[in-house]
Amino acid sequence: MLYDYEDRLAAPVRLKAASLQRDGRLSHVIFSKQFDRDLLDHVCDLATKVRELARLPEGREFLGSLINNRRAMLYFTQPSTRTFLSFMAASQMLGLDCNEIRDPSLSSEYKGESTYDSIRMFSSYFDLIIMRSPKARLAEESAYLMNDLRESGMRSVPIINGGSGADEHPTQALLDIYTARRSFDITSSGTPSAFKKLEHLKAKYPGFDEGLDGKTYCFAGDVGRGRTVRSLANLLSLYENVTLVFVSPDDDRYRIQDDLRQRLHEANVTVREETRLDAVIDDVDLLYMTRIQREWDKDTGVAPGEEPDLSGVHLTPELVARMREYTPILHPFPRNEEIPTSIDTDPRAMYFRQARNGIWVRAALIAYLFAKDTDIVRKHSRFFNERHRYNLGG
Amino acid sequence: MLYDYEDRLAAPVRLKAASLQRDGRLSHVIFSKQFDRDLLDHVCDLATKVRELARLPEGREFLGSLINNRRAMLYFTQPSTRTFLSFMAASQMLGLDCNEIRDPSLSSEYKGESTYDSIRMFSSYFDLIIMRSPKARLAEESAYLMNDLRESGMRSVPIINGGSGADEHPTQALLDIYTARRSFDITSSGTPSAFKKLEHLKAKYPGFDEGLDGKTYCFAGDVGRGRTVRSLANLLSLYENVTLVFVSPDDDRYRIQDDLRQRLHEANVTVREETRLDAVIDDVDLLYMTRIQREWDKDTGVAPGEEPDLSGVHLTPELVARMREYTPILHPFPRNEEIPTSIDTDPRAMYFRQARNGIWVRAALIAYLFAKDTDIVRKHSRFFNERHRYNLGG
Amino acid sequence: MLYDYEDRLAAPVRLKAASLQRDGRLSHVIFSKQFDRDLLDHVCDLATKVRELARLPEGREFLGSLINNRRAMLYFTQPSTRTFLSFMAASQMLGLDCNEIRDPSLSSEYKGESTYDSIRMFSSYFDLIIMRSPKARLAEESAYLMNDLRESGMRSVPIINGGSGADEHPTQALLDIYTARRSFDITSSGTPSAFKKLEHLKAKYPGFDEGLDGKTYCFAGDVGRGRTVRSLANLLSLYENVTLVFVSPDDDRYRIQDDLRQRLHEANVTVREETRLDAVIDDVDLLYMTRIQREWDKDTGVAPGEEPDLSGVHLTPELVARMREYTPILHPFPRNEEIPTSIDTDPRAMYFRQARNGIWVRAALIAYLFAKDTDIVRKHSRFFNERHRYNLGG
Repeated sequence: MLYDYEDRLAAPVRLKAASLQRDGRLSHVIFSKQFDRDLLDHVCDLATKVRELARLPEGREFLGSLINNRRAMLYFTQPSTRTFLSFMAASQMLGLDCNEIRDPSLSSEYKGESTYDSIRMFSSYFDLIIMRSPKARLAEESAYLMNDLRESGMRSVPIINGGSGADEHPTQALLDIYTARRSFDITSSGTPSAFKKLEHLKAKYPGFDEGLDGKTYCFAGDVGRGRTVRSLANLLSLYENVTLVFVSPDDDRYRIQDDLRQRLHEANVTVREETRLDAVIDDVDLLYMTRIQREWDKDTGVAPGEEPDLSGVHLTPELVARMREYTPILHPFPRNEEIPTSIDTDPRAMYFRQARNGIWVRAALIAYLFAKDTDIVRKHSRFFNERHRYNLGG
Repeated sequence: MLYDYEDRLAAPVRLKAASLQRDGRLSHVIFSKQFDRDLLDHVCDLATKVRELARLPEGREFLGSLINNRRAMLYFTQPSTRTFLSFMAASQMLGLDCNEIRDPSLSSEYKGESTYDSIRMFSSYFDLIIMRSPKARLAEESAYLMNDLRESGMRSVPIINGGSGADEHPTQALLDIYTARRSFDITSSGTPSAFKKLEHLKAKYPGFDEGLDGKTYCFAGDVGRGRTVRSLANLLSLYENVTLVFVSPDDDRYRIQDDLRQRLHEANVTVREETRLDAVIDDVDLLYMTRIQREWDKDTGVAPGEEPDLSGVHLTPELVARMREYTPILHPFPRNEEIPTSIDTDPRAMYFRQARNGIWVRAALIAYLFAKDTDIVRKHSRFFNERHRYNLGG
Repeated sequence: MLYDYEDRLAAPVRLKAASLQRDGRLSHVIFSKQFDRDLLDHVCDLATKVRELARLPEGREFLGSLINNRRAMLYFTQPSTRTFLSFMAASQMLGLDCNEIRDPSLSSEYKGESTYDSIRMFSSYFDLIIMRSPKARLAEESAYLMNDLRESGMRSVPIINGGSGADEHPTQALLDIYTARRSFDITSSGTPSAFKKLEHLKAKYPGFDEGLDGKTYCFAGDVGRGRTVRSLANLLSLYENVTLVFVSPDDDRYRIQDDLRQRLHEANVTVREETRLDAVIDDVDLLYMTRIQREWDKDTGVAPGEEPDLSGVHLTPELVARMREYTPILHPFPRNEEIPTSIDTDPRAMYFRQARNGIWVRAALIAYLFAKDTDIVRKHSRFFNERHRYNLGG
């Protein structure tokens, strides 16, 4: 029956994931658990190809005609700039016409319309719905609604979750993974100096190698309420032999939640919890900083002033000086005081590049949902086999 | 003289309609009375061609280049999602670049600018103005302003009324007519089973035939304040031998207004007024449900609680079971409680398809205003004569 | 160091201007002092070519592919309609995909993000940033940020100032100059009647000639707080032998500020200050009207009612009747009561055409920033040498 999703919402995640794909291809992107290593590899490779194509005028023209004459709805009833704009940029890059609803007070909901009716309306007018909502399950429910419509022979479009409730932000996790891969992909350029660099790192840090396996990932800050932490930790658990270090102030609000701890444990991930960055900073392979999500405090009745000492989860130039020379610093942004701007010029500061990676990953994901990935692969190979790889700018 | 429209606003509707066209073609779309049966036929046929072209990649590409390199302004100072988004989608489908003003507090009006100056500004920057305003006559006045500018040799652009005051919503009426036509156009597909279905309906419901003439149309709910009801009733009065049944709670707020009753009477339309759907449901050919427009209550000083019993104008599965098997259920949306979602899966529930029809009709109308209708007709015939009609999907 | 702009903000304007260009071409458009006569000529000629191309379908198609597959961000945290929409129209005309942030409450800033982080984010996602801010120096600082990023080998995009604080509005000044040039360019059409008209004006007004040199420009209204007045006065000081007459109510709020008076004096501009239009109206060559910027009053603690007599700076049909027959009336708009609408039909009322000129000038400027000016010049000459110039409409 339409609009009745309780059973499906309560189902085990493996079952849910199965219902969100079709013929071995995702129909909707709702949570990070839908991705296995193969799919992550595929989307990341695609993102790199999009990025390389976008450097060239002909490549931009090709991308701009890929999903031309189709329309996307960005339904963002939870405030967001970065995610919103990067989805806009990604959609526009592929030729999609974009539409947006950002302020619910401008919408029909004020006339008492149900959200399901709104979602069905969007699916009537548009060919893709990207949504971000304070309601934890809305994206998931919308995907089930689309599935039901398709099964009834009615019009149905893909749903992408751009962040739902405190729970999931799968595309952020994808771009984080992509950024980590680029950081640990020392020799991808194929140049002699790149191979030299890898040798140097292996010599200086015994056990270091390329790729995401076997690494120590450190999350610092409000790791309890940052949904990007949850989504990324899920994806990292797909890799071999990873250690996740969670550094948060000694306060239940900020610590990782039991369900995540449990899930990581079951996935054989080594989990460490600390309260100060300086206890771990020397040996982490990747540092993922997060801001304190103060907007949740008002919901839980905690006064803004009642914050514990947060200095232990703030990055400083001194801490950065102790970090390994290859360790990238990521941050899902926006940032507040946890990373002082004086660190921005450090070559390990990857957070602005990380934001830009969001365009490539999101464009790759949208292209994949529209089954345009083979077109990209083919075009990329045609472009870049006719050129000398080393002559290309960055 | 510029900005002096009192005489024109007070003129008889036939005179007004004449001033809104030029060389036998509408220059602006302001009220439903501008449409006669021929023009309705033309726009509806065009809408079907747009819909059929939009199914094919080459058709979408053709449509997307039709009004390319032109810009539309959607000036929607009255909240709306459905109408707004469907105009956006229609404009984008034709290649128009879209611009919007939805929140008047972001606009120059807060600096004391007159609305006429704003409209002239829009006509300076854009090639089409689609507007929805709480001010009853603003779209009409804007059309006269454009006429005056054109006569002074100055730049002038077409105006489309996307809903003005409590009065008119002509494009909604067009898409309602289009939806009704599709519902009563049993044999349009030309398949043997379609002809069989028509025979069956004629046998079961003596007097039934295709087309809009001779039918009983039932409007239920807040028929007094729903401008879509006024606009659609006007258009239906163009057809032969129609009966309009208005079902509203026994309260002056909700009943149709005297001017509409009078106008329908003059047009030889049979009008019935009822207070309960169950008194009429068995024999209506089309059911047009509407929500209670509570937002007007605060203007008239009626407390929200002081509502009469509304259950007589709510649709129920029991009532639907009594309806004729072909009778489409329409609703201009958004809906509140008047149609329970359990009815959505009934094959007679046409309200979501009706919403989608809004794109085709609005795109057809915009194409017509830019005199691109012959291009569409020509392209459509070229596409579809080269194909086997029966092979096309729906 | 990043984000440290104090020294640069305090530098002399000539030094600043030098830092905002590269290889003899502006990298960013921040203040009017960046323009010399040659550059003004170039941008104005380009604007005319854009305008002429935009008349023809093939010309619109050419323009629409000029900066295709690139994206602009319009970051307008100070309310504006006209400037915003005209930048939108100009960007769309050139094929740019547009994105906007107009309501800061929807953005990440509410999560405590610094404005610099926002600007860097925009430069990550988009290829051009057009901004309007209540913060006086934000556009300038953003330009320095972009310069620093470029020097560090990082991604950098052009910044256009769409109005900053009470200080600068350079593109408004450009379109004002363009409008003035068109008004004083009597014989540009090359027709015999145009030359006849010039002869007539020279005979009637001894000393009159084409071009901007040697003219008397009158600014009336709130000339103290209108940033368009400051920006335009700066540009006019580039011309020979100009007189600027400032007509404002006898109150410090409205009078021109000391720094502007000083600057004009140093540039050998003759400056006159008056309190009533009727003292000067007969002999001005151009009249630039402005509205009282009441929004600043609340910042300075002046009650709205405490306004002096403003009638001396209101235009009336009687005053217009006394004006020279060629004297154009400009207004940056929005207008309030200072120009009654009865004047709109006077052939000297240029303010609506002035607004439309904003599209051509802004499109020309954007094309110039993307180094597409030679493309436009070449295409224009190819189009218009193949045609009979006199056959073209206006």
